[in-house]
Amino acid sequence: MTNERHDITKERLSKITESIYDQLNEGEIPAMNLPLRSKKNIEFDPRYNVWKYGSMQTNRNCKTAKGAATMLKTLYIIDFIDLMIKTNKSSTLREMYYNSEGWGYGKFSSQDESNMMAEDLEIVSKCMREDFKLRPEEDGARVIGDITITAVNRKGVKQTLNCRDDVPDTGYGIPFNVEKEKVAIKPGTAKFVVAVETGGMFDRLVENGFDEKYNALLVHLKGQPARSTRRFIKRLNEELRLPVTVFTDGDPWSFRIFASVAYGAIKTAHISDYLATPTAQFIGITATDILNYDLPTDKLSDKDIAALKSELSDPRFKDEFWVSEIEAMLAMKKKAEQQALAKHGLDYVTDKYLPEKLTELGTLR
Amino acid sequence: MTNERHDITKERLSKITESIYDQLNEGEIPAMNLPLRSKKNIEFDPRYNVWKYGSMQTNRNCKTAKGAATMLKTLYIIDFIDLMIKTNKSSTLREMYYNSEGWGYGKFSSQDESNMMAEDLEIVSKCMREDFKLRPEEDGARVIGDITITAVNRKGVKQTLNCRDDVPDTGYGIPFNVEKEKVAIKPGTAKFVVAVETGGMFDRLVENGFDEKYNALLVHLKGQPARSTRRFIKRLNEELRLPVTVFTDGDPWSFRIFASVAYGAIKTAHISDYLATPTAQFIGITATDILNYDLPTDKLSDKDIAALKSELSDPRFKDEFWVSEIEAMLAMKKKAEQQALAKHGLDYVTDKYLPEKLTELGTLR
Repeated sequence: MTNERHDITKERLSKITESIYDQLNEGEIPAMNLPLRSKKNIEFDPRYNVWKYGSMQTNRNCKTAKGAATMLKTLYIIDFIDLMIKTNKSSTLREMYYNSEGWGYGKFSSQDESNMMAEDLEIVSKCMREDFKLRPEEDGARVIGDITITAVNRKGVKQTLNCRDDVPDTGYGIPFNVEKEKVAIKPGTAKFVVAVETGGMFDRLVENGFDEKYNALLVHLKGQPARSTRRFIKRLNEELRLPVTVFTDGDPWSFRIFASVAYGAIKTAHISDYLATPTAQFIGITATDILNYDLPTDKLSDKDIAALKSELSDPRFKDEFWVSEIEAMLAMKKKAEQQALAKHGLDYVTDKYLPEKLTELGTLR
Repeated sequence: MTNERHDITKERLSKITESIYDQLNEGEIPAMNLPLRSKKNIEFDPRYNVWKYGSMQTNRNCKTAKGAATMLKTLYIIDFIDLMIKTNKSSTLREMYYNSEGWGYGKFSSQDESNMMAEDLEIVSKCMREDFKLRPEEDGARVIGDITITAVNRKGVKQTLNCRDDVPDTGYGIPFNVEKEKVAIKPGTAKFVVAVETGGMFDRLVENGFDEKYNALLVHLKGQPARSTRRFIKRLNEELRLPVTVFTDGDPWSFRIFASVAYGAIKTAHISDYLATPTAQFIGITATDILNYDLPTDKLSDKDIAALKSELSDPRFKDEFWVSEIEAMLAMKKKAEQQALAKHGLDYVTDKYLPEKLTELGTLR
């Protein structure tokens, strides 16, 4: 992170502290307004073509002991971040949770609480969690294909690696902070992105040389993708102008993976314009694919059915394509994994399935 | 894999097929003997200082329809492996499971079944799953420190990378096959190995520069380590003569992670001499560490308690150290994560905890 970015972050966090101080000083009970963070309160933002929080608010104040403790925790988090910026450290969310053991009444009751408060602080400060130097436990998504990344490493040294020639078959591991100050991306021969849900399928495309044959850039999503992975994909799309396709299992949870890449996730809707790639296209597995490609299936569980139904009332899934695919899946009561394509042999996905789907979308001609 | 290795594998698999053919030809009901694969049947092998299967056997035969189907599946697996060797492919265990959709009566009923049968085939053939070109869904363990790896990549090209200078902060991703034919390891300044359970702690040691300050080689275990990670650690120990230490959470599941690195896992006891590093030392978190370092804890769940009790009857945990630590944990009814050390600050683990523990063991002087 540049010093400039540090300074902005520190200044904005100071303002929050000052505001609480001023309210106390004037004899007021300190309070903070935050958007309501649920499916009910997300709205389409036509400027960026992503879903963001709407106008519904919650008020957080110190009228109760619990409310006061929450405010105290906010101040401790700010202090913790300030120390990290000073000492050039970063921390996992879990480490911050444990560090709060020494914060007295400011101790978190669970890691869910500390994670959520870090996001709340993003909203209030208009900074990013990456500015706060907080990162998830693990992400480790990988990329393979012809682009070149120059990243500042832990020693502050710039390191340039080509993601096709200079990495092992396991790929280039995406770091937790992929901001421009840390990571520069240079185009190569890669013409489009295939973001892949599972490691098994990522490795299949790598082994089959799909990236080289079709000039594809393969990005491993690793399930529900980390913020850094989504941000990285957005930068590939915006800066390198690479079309993005998303290849997942065929079940309601995978549809949400696509939604979080393309439209923005509900939890991070305050920064959807920053993380989401609205032009990303879904290349399956859909209910229609299950039929067309005669795939082995599993029965939908009760949880799957409930999740699909919930998606029908999710504004992000309101278009014709999704409504019809979700209803088709509910009707057939079946789901399929992307690796189920192996039924037809190990080359089927790269020789037939992907070329067909990508041609249909116009990504391949 | 070299052609020689291919030939041995094909020859041994052919022998199995022949034996079934011959039995049928002579009017016998085909049968196969396998060691019993459970805790009851593991014995200490003093030659290698690891735990291996004992003499208890199960007989697999075709006297029932189910038994005949199992034998058929074995033959299909052999056929599938033969095709992969011919076409220079590998496959995830999950892909093989799905590929069996086309095997008629040979179709697997679950992936547990197909995984187990691949291991059974290792035992009967005395080959390795890596020879069969079968790999787990995902492992992605990482390594950082001064050693140099030359690996044959998917295009058959040798690629040499230093694990300190030529990789991003996310490290070098260990491939699924780390056999000598594929991967050569050259020593550098690294003097010992710290194998770390969680990604958060691995990243902490990397950020704090523990590897450079202490000439350590950091290996991410990623929970229960994949075979390739265990084999890689063994090679570091045998070929580079690096002492191995294992740093995990303090709970019964993490004790099993250590046991699988040091003594061999029950599931893979037929190849313990190949995967286990008997001289590996545990550097916590132990019950004693929880007290000595005043760590935040969680209550043991009923499952944790049952797992600890089961370890007391596990021959691998029979020595004084483990019995006393397991009993201490049962008495305090508490467990702790390695990241709990962050209670004392982000540098505590590298400034105090690890130097103390490693000095105690004699790894650091």
